[in-house]
Amino acid sequence: MKIIVLKFGGTSVGSLEKIIKVSKIIISYIKKKYKVIVVSSAMSGVTNELLSKTKKIARNFPNDEKDVILSTGEQISCALIAGKLRDLGYMSRSWLGWQLPIITRGNHSSSRIIKIKKNKILNYIKKGGIPIITGFQGVNNDFRITTLDRGGSDTSAILCAKFFKAEKCIIYTDVKGVYTTDPRLTTNAKKINKISYEEMLEMASLGAKVMQPASIQEARLNRIEIDVRSTFSKTTGTTITKKKNIFSNNTIRGISFTKNDAKLTLIGVKDKPGIAASIFKPLYENSINVDMVVQNVSAGGKETDLTFTIKLEDLKKTEKLIKNNIFIKYRKLIINKNVSKVSIVGVGMITTPGITYRMFKALAKKKINIEVISTSEIKISVLIDKKNLKKSVEILHQEFKLNNSL
Amino acid sequence: MKIIVLKFGGTSVGSLEKIIKVSKIIISYIKKKYKVIVVSSAMSGVTNELLSKTKKIARNFPNDEKDVILSTGEQISCALIAGKLRDLGYMSRSWLGWQLPIITRGNHSSSRIIKIKKNKILNYIKKGGIPIITGFQGVNNDFRITTLDRGGSDTSAILCAKFFKAEKCIIYTDVKGVYTTDPRLTTNAKKINKISYEEMLEMASLGAKVMQPASIQEARLNRIEIDVRSTFSKTTGTTITKKKNIFSNNTIRGISFTKNDAKLTLIGVKDKPGIAASIFKPLYENSINVDMVVQNVSAGGKETDLTFTIKLEDLKKTEKLIKNNIFIKYRKLIINKNVSKVSIVGVGMITTPGITYRMFKALAKKKINIEVISTSEIKISVLIDKKNLKKSVEILHQEFKLNNSL
Repeated sequence: MKIIVLKFGGTSVGSLEKIIKVSKIIISYIKKKYKVIVVSSAMSGVTNELLSKTKKIARNFPNDEKDVILSTGEQISCALIAGKLRDLGYMSRSWLGWQLPIITRGNHSSSRIIKIKKNKILNYIKKGGIPIITGFQGVNNDFRITTLDRGGSDTSAILCAKFFKAEKCIIYTDVKGVYTTDPRLTTNAKKINKISYEEMLEMASLGAKVMQPASIQEARLNRIEIDVRSTFSKTTGTTITKKKNIFSNNTIRGISFTKNDAKLTLIGVKDKPGIAASIFKPLYENSINVDMVVQNVSAGGKETDLTFTIKLEDLKKTEKLIKNNIFIKYRKLIINKNVSKVSIVGVGMITTPGITYRMFKALAKKKINIEVISTSEIKISVLIDKKNLKKSVEILHQEFKLNNSL
Repeated sequence: MKIIVLKFGGTSVGSLEKIIKVSKIIISYIKKKYKVIVVSSAMSGVTNELLSKTKKIARNFPNDEKDVILSTGEQISCALIAGKLRDLGYMSRSWLGWQLPIITRGNHSSSRIIKIKKNKILNYIKKGGIPIITGFQGVNNDFRITTLDRGGSDTSAILCAKFFKAEKCIIYTDVKGVYTTDPRLTTNAKKINKISYEEMLEMASLGAKVMQPASIQEARLNRIEIDVRSTFSKTTGTTITKKKNIFSNNTIRGISFTKNDAKLTLIGVKDKPGIAASIFKPLYENSINVDMVVQNVSAGGKETDLTFTIKLEDLKKTEKLIKNNIFIKYRKLIINKNVSKVSIVGVGMITTPGITYRMFKALAKKKINIEVISTSEIKISVLIDKKNLKKSVEILHQEFKLNNSL
């Protein structure tokens, strides 16, 4: 059996007309003799609308009941797709998380899929049926509905591809693929044909919102090849695959950036062992993710300056936690909300000397000041003034010849 | 255990504010030491909105997928109630039809509940929990979600009362109880304190839309006492109970009426045995309900006139079926859309002579013409010109002294 998993995102099923479009895409694979397994998100906007109901009715709305409510989004979109396919003469039905079942563990609203029971779906596709499986949800040991992290439908699709041993997983979305950088920022952005899991992971977590990072990680671990492509265009998309399948002319594959960061600098922190830990512990305990961190070498050995970045949305909470933290002494807290992080990403970077130098030189030439630097094996990130964002991305795009990408 | 079943209708949970109100009603029973089982409808309007989606996307949207979609209405309302109760400090959770399970048989979209599994709910209420059970739905042998007939949440509640051996079932709705006639038509209408199942059944099926008729029938068969009362008022409602519990000063207990009927008269039908059957067979096969029927005695034995009433919404289909029916010959079809059926209802009628005479005389006095008559053991119905509806109801209300009802 040639099994293929097709995943449709919220915007792809965002209206009844779009669901009809989606049904026709599904049929095109059936005509190519594929056994198709569909995973769908909720119609765009629905999940947020439902979420706002829970927030309005109770300050501490319990997560288990929130999951019962949010899961209706996919329940509806999947039944609409199945109903339309039947209307068009195909055998199809919706499969809710609890009906397979898709078994999850962990807390409500952020559960993990640990197993997808296969037999019912395999029997169904053998008989010629097209199963439409609800993304983003499952059922736990107590037979209660659970949901994954937001955007979890991508993970549902990848794990369906894994458990059903699919040839491929195709993510249908509202963009044509993965770009060298965000096409909304600069028209220089170019679609990438093939990208490695690792590069995609860096691009995704750095703000290129094509897929949820956790789902790319699952694909990488299970060696599931992914195609990302547009529901509304015939052009081929981007294939996300193993490093060794990538034959690129470029060391740098993409430039990602963030716009919603905040930089905090603690001036005159008393320098003693464990001081950074005591600053970051309460942040960690409150699920605040600290991204870039720089600690200055302390000039007389007594005091140091500590700079770090967080998501802008966490700023208020972070400020409060630092001010209430009795374990740290510092002279002054400086906050800068006008920062952006620009990153160049590429798996070839580690074997190519001089990349860092070229990046810094290109920015310096345009008089763009670098505030913080962080690097990984396949990525270099710099923090800059937000007003220089477009200029920085364009100069780096040019420097690393991304216009000529394959 | 003193178990009570509380059922909330769509208007009772029609907004977040109303759900908060409902939560407080539930808590008031907990404070009276009841073990409360809640059954809820979907928020008003939601089911119709979902239904319109299925109609828009496919001309023949399959009923099984329609059920998957419609069931989300109660899934959301029940989770909102449970979440609010938890927020207020009570142990509560939603229970979806498939989680108990509530087992149904029959076709999708018009299934019947055949069993409600009790053990999980009984364990839960013993531990002090307040279960919020989705009305209107269940699960079939194939583990697929099913729904009952529209308004089926009443039946869900009655059957919960039956299976859990509840002391009583209280139907919370948007009216204060059952009235002698529709208060929107005449201010003379008076709330009835106690009514028998049989009377209520006639009132319900004749257009007094307080409860779904099938649910009253279930209550009658299982001797479940029902209270109907308003979610938004403290006044006591109407108790629906056994005939022998009714001690009324009146033979006639209520006057119900319809506004959406159509009268069809076939003039000059060739009179031969089985002619009525051949007229009504195609209507029956198309689920068109024929209500009142009169066949004139044929003058010479060759021809007769046949008059019958149907729901106005079935008129077009009926007209077509009659015109295409090759088995019947008639001279002319006369259609009258301006008719109303007025019925007087009372279990004591059968033992009280002269009721029919009093009804006809009262109408005649006001020069109201009776077009068709039909009678049952506890009801007399007459078809009149719609323009005389209000006048007719008021004169009958006065004739049978319903202003003095208990």
